[in-house]
Amino acid sequence: MKVVSARDFQLKRENDYGTPEQNEVVKAIVADIRAEGDAALLRHTEQLDRVRLTADQLRVTDEELKAAYEQVETSFVTAIQSAANNIRAFHLKQKRNSWMDLQADGSILGQIIRPLKRVGVYVPGGKAAYPSSVLMNVIPAQVAGVPEIVMVTPPSTGGQDGVNPYILVAAAEAGVTEIYRVGGAQAIAALAYGTETITPVDKICGPGNIYVALAKREVYGTVNIDSLAGPSEIAVLADDSADASYIAADLLSQAEHDEMASAILVTPSRKLGEAVAVEVQRQLELLPRRDIARASVDSYGAVIITESLSEGIEVINRLAPEHLEIMTEEPMAIAGRIENAGAIFLGPYSSEPVGDYFAGPNHIIPTNGTARFASPVDLDDFIKKSSLIYYSKEALLRDGEQIMELARREGLEGHARAIQIRLDQER
Amino acid sequence: MKVVSARDFQLKRENDYGTPEQNEVVKAIVADIRAEGDAALLRHTEQLDRVRLTADQLRVTDEELKAAYEQVETSFVTAIQSAANNIRAFHLKQKRNSWMDLQADGSILGQIIRPLKRVGVYVPGGKAAYPSSVLMNVIPAQVAGVPEIVMVTPPSTGGQDGVNPYILVAAAEAGVTEIYRVGGAQAIAALAYGTETITPVDKICGPGNIYVALAKREVYGTVNIDSLAGPSEIAVLADDSADASYIAADLLSQAEHDEMASAILVTPSRKLGEAVAVEVQRQLELLPRRDIARASVDSYGAVIITESLSEGIEVINRLAPEHLEIMTEEPMAIAGRIENAGAIFLGPYSSEPVGDYFAGPNHIIPTNGTARFASPVDLDDFIKKSSLIYYSKEALLRDGEQIMELARREGLEGHARAIQIRLDQER
Repeated sequence: MKVVSARDFQLKRENDYGTPEQNEVVKAIVADIRAEGDAALLRHTEQLDRVRLTADQLRVTDEELKAAYEQVETSFVTAIQSAANNIRAFHLKQKRNSWMDLQADGSILGQIIRPLKRVGVYVPGGKAAYPSSVLMNVIPAQVAGVPEIVMVTPPSTGGQDGVNPYILVAAAEAGVTEIYRVGGAQAIAALAYGTETITPVDKICGPGNIYVALAKREVYGTVNIDSLAGPSEIAVLADDSADASYIAADLLSQAEHDEMASAILVTPSRKLGEAVAVEVQRQLELLPRRDIARASVDSYGAVIITESLSEGIEVINRLAPEHLEIMTEEPMAIAGRIENAGAIFLGPYSSEPVGDYFAGPNHIIPTNGTARFASPVDLDDFIKKSSLIYYSKEALLRDGEQIMELARREGLEGHARAIQIRLDQER
Repeated sequence: MKVVSARDFQLKRENDYGTPEQNEVVKAIVADIRAEGDAALLRHTEQLDRVRLTADQLRVTDEELKAAYEQVETSFVTAIQSAANNIRAFHLKQKRNSWMDLQADGSILGQIIRPLKRVGVYVPGGKAAYPSSVLMNVIPAQVAGVPEIVMVTPPSTGGQDGVNPYILVAAAEAGVTEIYRVGGAQAIAALAYGTETITPVDKICGPGNIYVALAKREVYGTVNIDSLAGPSEIAVLADDSADASYIAADLLSQAEHDEMASAILVTPSRKLGEAVAVEVQRQLELLPRRDIARASVDSYGAVIITESLSEGIEVINRLAPEHLEIMTEEPMAIAGRIENAGAIFLGPYSSEPVGDYFAGPNHIIPTNGTARFASPVDLDDFIKKSSLIYYSKEALLRDGEQIMELARREGLEGHARAIQIRLDQER
């Protein structure tokens, strides 16, 4: 792991918008589903997932869901239920009410806040099938009050019936209302435009491979989508009071995600920095996913030595990391100076996996420096707001002339006349 | 204006993603600004806006701002100040605090809510220069606490100094902190990537022509953008108690915006529907912008006769209109049954221009059916949230095993070890 000064550190960032060929493939699949519905969905599933299904086999049955509970360990069910309870409790705190402002002239202004009606959640198959991500995508929607939550996942996720039982149990615990065994760009297109079997949704969430990401981009506008996640990142801000072995373990928990994950220590202590670099090397060799972690550490990992803790805070604000751990003498006193970070973990016991799996805050967090302007998933992602305007006769008679002044200044005489016709009649 | 039954009505919707040539042009301009900064910005301004500037002429000076107040009528200044006060008051009601949840085990979970640091607002030139849109884009940012609000507008917007004085006055009243006389895709690129003169922003808002819209799409990810607005729409839901001439005037106030604007009456009363159709025709001929309004009414206008008020509500929820006026005997009793509408105007005096200019709620509202999943601009568009996790030693010792169970089930041993190393040392 390289040790560098703040001045010499240059962050690598890359956005993947796919090759022109990948974009062509996705456009063609989306067009097929729009034109042919289920027939195209089944054809692409056979071609791409090598699974032959009929339309009435698309939906996962209640029996399969029940069977999934038999296939997983009790300790898993207990843990996923505890995590779900914590995630539900945290997101419940975000509930917002519709509100109104009743004015002395009789007018009422306000905002009506409602849940979305139908949400689709994509769950990847294969090695990237993470039950925790099912909880993190579904529970906020469920707590927001979304009545219909549809999960799609490729039929090749393994297990007896072609769907991973851990995913099915997580879905049931989180509150998914329908599950379909379809994946890839064809699943995204089906959620956006609907088929004979799948009713279209208002928003599509959840991670996926490049084809899934491009399909989400393609259907954006027809439905809403969540933001496109980049590789995962952690930054640790620490001083001499921190334990180098804890920091190293936390950096590696991020590095093992994928070769492009980024794990960075920022510290004014050269001594700590060098100790962490050594400890990362030691712990790395003991990890099952050491090849991935090593590639990540070599390409995107760093120990950045700063002049001071204040300079460290500046570096963090420039990085705008997805995850930030603060392990200093007074971690709480630093939190207020962090402008840009998706999730902030304070003190020696708030290891990132605590948040990844269990504490309650969402683990879907802005990556790639976008914490500058974006936020972790929460209830706000599953609501919509309508403005409410009731203007009284008194208010209109009072304000009418000023409204017409502004309308006419913009050359919109029709706007002014909609007011004038009322003033003429009511005055 | 055609009068049709709900069953026979088919809404036309179109998305404009530009021609391949327009996309090429925009990509080239953005690349130029990224590579050459001010030099490219000035070159494209000369080429496209036919205005030759030096870098130090880009920024509008305080003297120009002061001069603008001399160039506009006092009645305009008074009206814009009243509107600004109302908009500010409404958006102030949306203020949210950071919050925390202190748990019995000593842990603290929460969300830190902060304003964005720097926001760019695009203001179109020429005929589409609307002071009211300056207020609606800038005031929410200012109320949210954004310290730096940068306006860009083409140098060809008219007026003595090349910038429209009405726009300048609106900008000053709304709280803009910097103004640059640049427009088009080159202005969007400058806001996203920065030049020697313009510091990059975190988010870009505001309407523009197709090149501006495509440039916003192009820089999305590097910065955040607002949603891309389609043509404006109004739907009126009314019964026999409504005044046909008010409804006709309101429909026309929308139709005069542009040829693709849509104005639709939904009513169970054929009598009212026919009266409105006649009245639209009559008022239309008296409008200065009658050619635009006529084209809009002919192509996108309709009177939809429903079986009942309930069926009317269903039609509205399918349309998900940007603006909805409810003019029935009990308008308040219907508001709760509207699932999809950007802004809801209740009763005979809440004519849409009241909200367009003056009442306080934002006039930037989801179009094109996206009120199904999107919301009017408000404070939420100018904040970012960070999750806060402080886990106590007690909590980690209690939950550690369950966290490891979930991590190992996902094959992420490194995540489990970040917990294990702490349990080993602290237990």
